[in-house]
Formats: sequence, structure tokens, C-alpha cells
Amino acid sequence: MAATIGFIGLGNMGGPMAANLIKAGHRVLGFDLAEPALDALEKAGGERAGGVVALASEADVVVSMLPAGAHVRKIYLGDDGVLANAKAGALLIDSSTIDVDSARTFAAAAAERGFPMVDAPVSGGVAGAAAGTLTFMVGGTDDAFERAKPYLAVMGKTVVHAGGSGNGQAAKICNNMILGISMIGVSEAFVLAERLGLEAQKLFDISSTASGQCWSLTSYCPVPGPLPASPANNDYTPGFAAEMMLKDLKLAQEAAHASGAATPLGAEAAALYSLFCNSGGEGADFSAIVKFLRGSA
Amino acid sequence: MAATIGFIGLGNMGGPMAANLIKAGHRVLGFDLAEPALDALEKAGGERAGGVVALASEADVVVSMLPAGAHVRKIYLGDDGVLANAKAGALLIDSSTIDVDSARTFAAAAAERGFPMVDAPVSGGVAGAAAGTLTFMVGGTDDAFERAKPYLAVMGKTVVHAGGSGNGQAAKICNNMILGISMIGVSEAFVLAERLGLEAQKLFDISSTASGQCWSLTSYCPVPGPLPASPANNDYTPGFAAEMMLKDLKLAQEAAHASGAATPLGAEAAALYSLFCNSGGEGADFSAIVKFLRGSA
Amino acid sequence: MAATIGFIGLGNMGGPMAANLIKAGHRVLGFDLAEPALDALEKAGGERAGGVVALASEADVVVSMLPAGAHVRKIYLGDDGVLANAKAGALLIDSSTIDVDSARTFAAAAAERGFPMVDAPVSGGVAGAAAGTLTFMVGGTDDAFERAKPYLAVMGKTVVHAGGSGNGQAAKICNNMILGISMIGVSEAFVLAERLGLEAQKLFDISSTASGQCWSLTSYCPVPGPLPASPANNDYTPGFAAEMMLKDLKLAQEAAHASGAATPLGAEAAALYSLFCNSGGEGADFSAIVKFLRGSA
Amino acid sequence: MAATIGFIGLGNMGGPMAANLIKAGHRVLGFDLAEPALDALEKAGGERAGGVVALASEADVVVSMLPAGAHVRKIYLGDDGVLANAKAGALLIDSSTIDVDSARTFAAAAAERGFPMVDAPVSGGVAGAAAGTLTFMVGGTDDAFERAKPYLAVMGKTVVHAGGSGNGQAAKICNNMILGISMIGVSEAFVLAERLGLEAQKLFDISSTASGQCWSLTSYCPVPGPLPASPANNDYTPGFAAEMMLKDLKLAQEAAHASGAATPLGAEAAALYSLFCNSGGEGADFSAIVKFLRGSA
Repeated sequence: MAATIGFIGLGNMGGPMAANLIKAGHRVLGFDLAEPALDALEKAGGERAGGVVALASEADVVVSMLPAGAHVRKIYLGDDGVLANAKAGALLIDSSTIDVDSARTFAAAAAERGFPMVDAPVSGGVAGAAAGTLTFMVGGTDDAFERAKPYLAVMGKTVVHAGGSGNGQAAKICNNMILGISMIGVSEAFVLAERLGLEAQKLFDISSTASGQCWSLTSYCPVPGPLPASPANNDYTPGFAAEMMLKDLKLAQEAAHASGAATPLGAEAAALYSLFCNSGGEGADFSAIVKFLRGSA
Repeated sequence: MAATIGFIGLGNMGGPMAANLIKAGHRVLGFDLAEPALDALEKAGGERAGGVVALASEADVVVSMLPAGAHVRKIYLGDDGVLANAKAGALLIDSSTIDVDSARTFAAAAAERGFPMVDAPVSGGVAGAAAGTLTFMVGGTDDAFERAKPYLAVMGKTVVHAGGSGNGQAAKICNNMILGISMIGVSEAFVLAERLGLEAQKLFDISSTASGQCWSLTSYCPVPGPLPASPANNDYTPGFAAEMMLKDLKLAQEAAHASGAATPLGAEAAALYSLFCNSGGEGADFSAIVKFLRGSA
Repeated sequence: MAATIGFIGLGNMGGPMAANLIKAGHRVLGFDLAEPALDALEKAGGERAGGVVALASEADVVVSMLPAGAHVRKIYLGDDGVLANAKAGALLIDSSTIDVDSARTFAAAAAERGFPMVDAPVSGGVAGAAAGTLTFMVGGTDDAFERAKPYLAVMGKTVVHAGGSGNGQAAKICNNMILGISMIGVSEAFVLAERLGLEAQKLFDISSTASGQCWSLTSYCPVPGPLPASPANNDYTPGFAAEMMLKDLKLAQEAAHASGAATPLGAEAAALYSLFCNSGGEGADFSAIVKFLRGSA
Repeated sequence: MAATIGFIGLGNMGGPMAANLIKAGHRVLGFDLAEPALDALEKAGGERAGGVVALASEADVVVSMLPAGAHVRKIYLGDDGVLANAKAGALLIDSSTIDVDSARTFAAAAAERGFPMVDAPVSGGVAGAAAGTLTFMVGGTDDAFERAKPYLAVMGKTVVHAGGSGNGQAAKICNNMILGISMIGVSEAFVLAERLGLEAQKLFDISSTASGQCWSLTSYCPVPGPLPASPANNDYTPGFAAEMMLKDLKLAQEAAHASGAATPLGAEAAALYSLFCNSGGEGADFSAIVKFLRGSA
């Protein structure tokens, strides 16, 4: 059933996500601070909203895709924000990747005003956003999840209910913490192999069918050769940029600190990505950390 | 073609490996310092050698499975050792897990005396040794590898040629360094998820089909529940003991130091397994490090 | 010149600090949620304020000593808080240890309303608070610092101006990050020495006059023996509790993440103190981490 | 009393050490593989030995200063080495920095042949060697120490008996592990301070009299300014080169691995110095790691 969807944040991710909602027959009102993003939306068949207030007052569903928690706070909680101006019963979906505690705070504020809200961060990157193959990790009540699911299914191919509010964010940072750690681990193994005279292809062949197998190795190999489609073969053009990985690793550390969890390798992975980004790697694919570890960054 | 095989080191791993060689029709002369190991060999159809000298002087092929480099050095290089006493043209196979440099030193010493020698460490554990499903990672010349392959194929189901001498050891420690790092990474993710109120099963479901997928998660999950056969469901009975993982991580660090590779997460993984072992975890399965990280060790 | 000072937060630290202000001739109005703290204040010659509003409306100077940034936010920025109710020109001193960004936010909010405010976290612990020998690290304008100095000088013996707003907090977390790292470093050295058969006293004698010299070794030695007054000789009774060190290390990490600094050992130190606290060490002196590192925690 | 001293290894350290023995009236026979080193010895009043055998057969005391354990092994244990050719009762002093186990092995081999031997590694660098102000950390029996002391006192100003064989090496690596860790810790604090807008001089002033005080800060400050004589003010010309610090940190890790000690920050410090050296820092002073941590290396 077609709905009026207010989409806030039409960047590299939000733009194509909104376009997929339009293609599915929904009316999409968009808001962004960048004119070109709004132009692109119109070209895709959407409409410019006059602002957040106007958008919120018309939308059956609000979807947001913003860079950080501070933006989400402002858009939802401000006097001119979504909560103060949304239609009764509107469904709120925040697909930004932000910290767990803030996601829970925003959902609680929404619930107080009667709005079901889910946190629904994604994995899959720009390519997945365009192709509609994103994975959504969703936190919220069963009801909110069921209401959100059809819209998310238009933008992605996997929609998982991770539990109550904030659990979408929790699932994303836990997953990406494993990813960041294993990417460094795999990279260290290639660097060590190289020093020992063991060919990269040999290590790949052996570990890809052994106990060292992991997605970082077998789906995103950080050295050129074994996987032709991996960014390593394309001068480490992202893909998933090192600075985005660093952002997620910091969110994981923030959650670990706030919740009292000890995550020594997660902490070290964040520090290493920070060193790598500060030495010029921020815009490269996150698998380029192998160059930093090798010493040729 | 049946050969006379001298097997040195008939412990938990070597015993069943020797038994598989006997089953395949070879004559096996065994040596070990422990009487029960020799009794078991005889029961399996093998023969006791009078000592290393006697064993070496009769064997077409020598296979060794020893705890550390010092034992291998003594058995091969000593005056009463294999090199000084082996038959002309005998093939030497060391399946011990030792440091790369020593493996290369021993192979060079063997070559000087005209003996082809391969380093052929295994993965697969005691269960794999008994079932004949081990993986052998083999370092040595092409000729030595081809000669060794039929014997290794009797004891394992995967036999990979990783390159020249020492590369079997190199492949093993590179793989196991990834394994140790990813096991800690996965464990940290479960500990963090728990603190954040995200169920272990949910995290498993999400990450097992996402970018956090790795063998440590999907084939050896460190928390009870998701994988009924993993040691976590059997009170962390090994499997692969924490002290064995620590040994391999130390070998990886030794190789990194000697070769000049920087492996920060590998170094930290070794330190964390050392802390875990020193606090009483040495005999538990290596996935039990999740308990140490949680704080209930 | 005697002033009316409103003191908020009369716990282990704040109580004796307020008492020292009273001894110096000031009128102290106190506020705390705990009755016994207010009783103690009265016994020391102070007065109970009816609440924050009453306190703020009378005080020439407000001093706060609270557990975390959230408390400080509530006390200063809330509708019933200090900023909304203070006398024109009142001087505000926050001695809590909180994150740098929040300290800057609070000082900016105070400045908007015309109140000079300094962040003035302390080192020196409960003993220093009682003896009036604390060190204050102060952030704020030159004027605010000059106004605050006489009051701080009553409660401490060292008062350092670290620069603009937030720099008091910055100085404290930078210093304590060095402290946490060096305490672990010294402890690791003692653990290693022990394993190598090098007596603790020998290591102390050598390093205390060599390049390994540091406050953690020569003023707070983590093993019993060399320094009779160190907590190690008193069953690790704090002193400075491990959970307080962990709090400061987390603040340092928060600042590093927010500012983009890479601090790999600082990150690891936070993780190690987190592991130690989660395994039961939270209430012990922070030098007791040597026991955790040794494996007997 | 003047003795005939055989000095093996006349490099940057050994050369000036030998010269100080000559100045004190001893006859010094020198051996080195480099002609210029021998020329310099002659210029200083020493004599060229024809080789190790000739040197050993004449010397009352043998002093060695070599780059690594392998060299020491060869010089002492080889057929043409010191032990096989020394005069009865000769005193053996190895001032090389090598691993603890090897030092103990060499001393035991010497003792078997009746030679008292001490391990006596130094700190103080090239400047200390020239000025005769080195610190010697000595391992060996009381008798051996007493015999060695007068010679060491000629070359250094502090001579400490750290216990039995190998304890000189143990003391040195424990001390230098603290040094490496604290240098990184201090550097991270300066990097964080910079990002937070806290001046380096302010942090120096505060921490140099507080609990963050350590030799790395107050005697060897890694940022330019606070200490005019520190290498930071001389473009990080060593001083003590990063590659030498890395060598010592690796020896500490080797000892930790062999002895079973867990040293997580020591491990991470070694990895960070390895990253720094591999990215071009090997020849810089070890305090230049602050540049690597800042991201401008």
C-alpha cells in the first residue's frame, strides 16, 4: 500500500534508498541541506519538502539517514523536529549508525509521544543502497518492527529483528567490531607471510578452507590477487572507507565503556584505524590497512 | 607401496597417526619415551624400535611428531640422531609445530647429508588424527613434497604444498594467528552484546551471514547455544586447548620478531591468551577465553 | 575576604574540601542527596542549603564535586539549576572529573549568562582532600582563574592554570593516562622479573635510578617491599581505586575519540583495567593490577 | 693492577669502552671484523689480536660487546672460540645485550670449563661509553661479580649486581620495557593534549611534578621545547635509536614468552616500535615515536 514517506538525509546512502522507495510506488518527500541531493530526488520522482516541520506534518512514515547521533538528536528532538510535528501514529525509522544509548533515548522520547520508532542501521554500502540489497539490523518492539518491515524490504534484501530499541545499533557495532578486528588479523597474517616467503595466494588457498577462514579473507581479501573483485585490486578505492570503519569501531568502544564490557582487541583495532586514518588513509578502503601494517603506507 | 616407516613421538597426535600408517599397510617402527605409547603402538600392529639410531637405520621414511623445536633439534641433529644414522635417501617428515627458522635449519642440515625433508605441521586436532582427516601444510622442495604426499594422504584428507622449507610452519602460524585473533574478536562481540542486551543467538544469526562471519563464529561458536557441537556446549572441554593456541601465537610472534613483521593484534592476542592461561585457563578449550573476557573466569 | 560559598556534592572528596573552606573563614552552604553528608557539614560548621536553587541564590561562589558529567549537567543546566538561579557575577568552580567537551559546554553556557566558570579537577585523593594538599588543574579564562585561585589554594597546595575552558580536565586525563600506562608497564616488569628470577628489590634499586624511573615505581611501587607506605604493603587498600583509574582512562579514550587522537597504549590500558575491574578488582587500589597481570587475581 | 684484557667487538660502544680500559693502564688486545675499528684501537694505545684464539690465549680478562646472541655464541662456544682457548682462570665479561636464556647457557658452559663469567649489559649509550659513565647491570656469582667490578668501574660509573647469571640481561630488559612503554605513554599524552588544545609546556609543567612523572617525560621529553637537551630539539638525532629500543623490546617479549609472563603493554610497545621502524623511523631517536603516533611520520 503506497504511503507518504518523509526521507531525511539524501546523501550517498539516503539518496538511492529514497529512490528505491519511489520505485516501489511510495510518495517520497525529501529533506537535505544540499541542493544537489534534492535535485537528484526530484529527478528520481520525489518531492522536496519545505523543511523538517513540513515533511513531518505530512508523512505516514519518516526515514532518516544521517551522519551521527548529534544530527539525529536535532532532527527528532528539536522544537522544529520530527517528534514535535509528526502526524499521529506516524512510524519513525532511523537508519543512521549512531550510539546505542542515543538510539534508546530517541525511541523512548518517540514512545512518550505515541510514535513507534525503530533503529535500523544498514550494512552493504553504497552499492547495496543502489541495488536495494542492504541488510537492515532492526531494534524496536515487535509491532514497530512489523510495521517497518515492508518499507525496509523495499530498500534491502535482509531485514533482521535484533530485539528491543537500540539492538539494531548493538548488532551493527558488534558485527563491525568483529569485521575490523578480523580485517586487521588477516592483514597481519599476509604481512607476516610475505616476510616469511609464503606467497599470498598460498596463504589464501590454505586459510580460506581452514580455521582462519573469515569474510575479511574470503569475501574481501586485503591483498591484490586472490579475489579479483576486492578493493585491493582497484587501488583500494572504497567500498567501505577506513574512516567509516573507524567511526563504527569508536561507537563499539563507546558502547563498551558505557556498558562496562572489556574489549581489548576492539580497543586496539580502533587505535590502529585511528593511526592509519591520521597518516592519510581515511579515504581509502578499510582493507588498505594492510599497507599501513606492512610499513609502506 | 608399503614402506618401513620410523615414527618418533607417539603421543595424542602421533599415536593415531602412526596407527593410520599401519592400517594402510606400512611397517611402522616407533619410538617414544613413554612406555604406554609404545604398548599402544604394538597393539595397533607396529613395532618398538630400540632407539632413534636403530629406527633411523632401518626406515625408508621417518615421521616425527614432537612438542617443540628443542626436541626436534635433538632427534635430528644429535650424534645419536636421525641425520647421522638414516639410510641413504631416506625421506624425512617433521609434523611437529615449531618455529620457521628452526624448520629451515633442520631441512638445510638434512639436505647437506642428502636427505629430502619436509616440514608438515597439521591442523585438525586429536579427533582429526584418529579419523585420518588432518590437514597437512607442507614446506619443502617439489620433489620432497611429491615423495611425502602419499604418506601424508594416509594420515589426513588435505595435503597442501605451501612452498619451500619452513613454509608449512609459516602457513600454520599465519592461519592460527588469524584464528586466535578472530576467536578473541568474536568473543568480545558476544561479551559486548550481552552487556547491551542483545541475545547471543541474535548476534550469531546476524553475523553468521554478514561481514563478521568467520570460522570462530560459524564453526566453533564460543558461547553455548548456537552450535550444539561446539566445545562451549561441553563445558569447554578441548578441542584445541588454550595452551596450544598460546604456543602457536608465541611461534607467530617469534617469526614476526625474527622477520621484522609488525603484528599488533597478533601480539595482543598472545598476551591475552597468556593472561588467560596464567589465570587457570590453560587446559580449557581455547574458545573459553570468552569467559576470561567476560570477567567470570 | 570571607565569602558565601555554595558547595554541591559533599562525598568523600567534597566533604573535607568544604570543611577546609569553613576553616579558612568562609560561610559554606552545602547540598547533597545524602543526609549523613549534610550532618557532617553542619558538624564542621557549615549550613544546609534548602536545595540547589536556594544555594545558588545566596552564593558568591559555587563549588561542585560530583561523580560524572551527567550530574554536573543536571546541577548547572537544569531549570532548577545553578545557571538559572545564581546571583549576578557569581563565580562557578566545578571540581568534578568529567569529559573535556562537557566541561567546555558548561563553561560556555555559564559565560552566556555572565558567569565566569572554571573546570578544576583534582589529584591527591581523599587524603589530599582532608589535608588540604590537593593539586588543582584549572581551565578557564585568566580572570576566572585569578578569581578562583584563592579558594582553590585553601583546599590544595598546588593550583595550576592549564589554559582555557576544559584544559583542567584535559590536563588531568593526559596525566592520568600516563599514570595508568606506566603503572601497568611497571607491573609487567615486576611480573617478568619474577619469572626470570630477578628479585623485586633489585629491579626497584636499578630502575629507580635509571631510565625506567617513574612515579608508579618510585612513589607508588605496586609490589610489597620496596616502599613501605605504598598500598601494596597494605593489602592494596586504596589509595586510588582501580575503578577510579578506569573512569579516568575511559575519559581519556572519549577525548581521544572525539578529538581524533590515536592512543593505542591508552586504549589498551583502559581495556586491561576494565578486565581487572570485571574480575573483581574494582575496589582494590589501582596498583593491584600487578596481581591480575601475574595471574593470581 | 694492570691486566691484559682481550676486547672483542670494537664498534660504537666497544671502541670507547676499550679506550677507557687503556687509559686506566690496562693492556688491551682487540678483535673486530672491521679494519677501521682496529686502527682506532691502535691509535688509542691498544694492540690488534691476530684473532679470537690468539686473543683468548693471552688475556687475563675477556670483554665482549657484540650485536646479538648469535655472535656471542659463535665467539664463546665455537671451536675457535674463547672457551676452547682461554687461559686457565680467565675472567669473562659479556657486555652485549642478548636474551636471558642464552646468557645463562653461555655462563654455564664457561663454568663447566672453570671460567667465571658475568653478563654485564649497559645503559647510557655512545655518549656514556665515551665518558665512562655507563651503567652496568651484572649477572653472575658473587665472586665473578667482585672480580669483574674493577674493570667495569673503569668503563662506567654505576655497577649493580642484579643476581645470578642472566640477571644482568633480565634487569636491562625489564628496565627498558618500562622505558619503551612509558615513552609511548608520554607521547600519546602529548598527542592527545595537542588535539585538545592543551599546550605541551603546560602538560610538561603539570605532569613533571605529578603522578605522570617519569624519566621519559622529565629527562628525555619527546616533544621540542620543555627540555632543551632532549633529542626532540635536535631533529630526533639519537641518542638511543628506535631500532635499538625495538631490539630490547623484542628481547623482553622473548623472555616473557619463554618464562610464561604475560606482558600486554610490553607486547604492544614492541609492535608499535616495529610499525614505526618499518615506516622509516628505525634510525631516529626512539622518542620520535611521538611523530608516528601523531600521524605525521
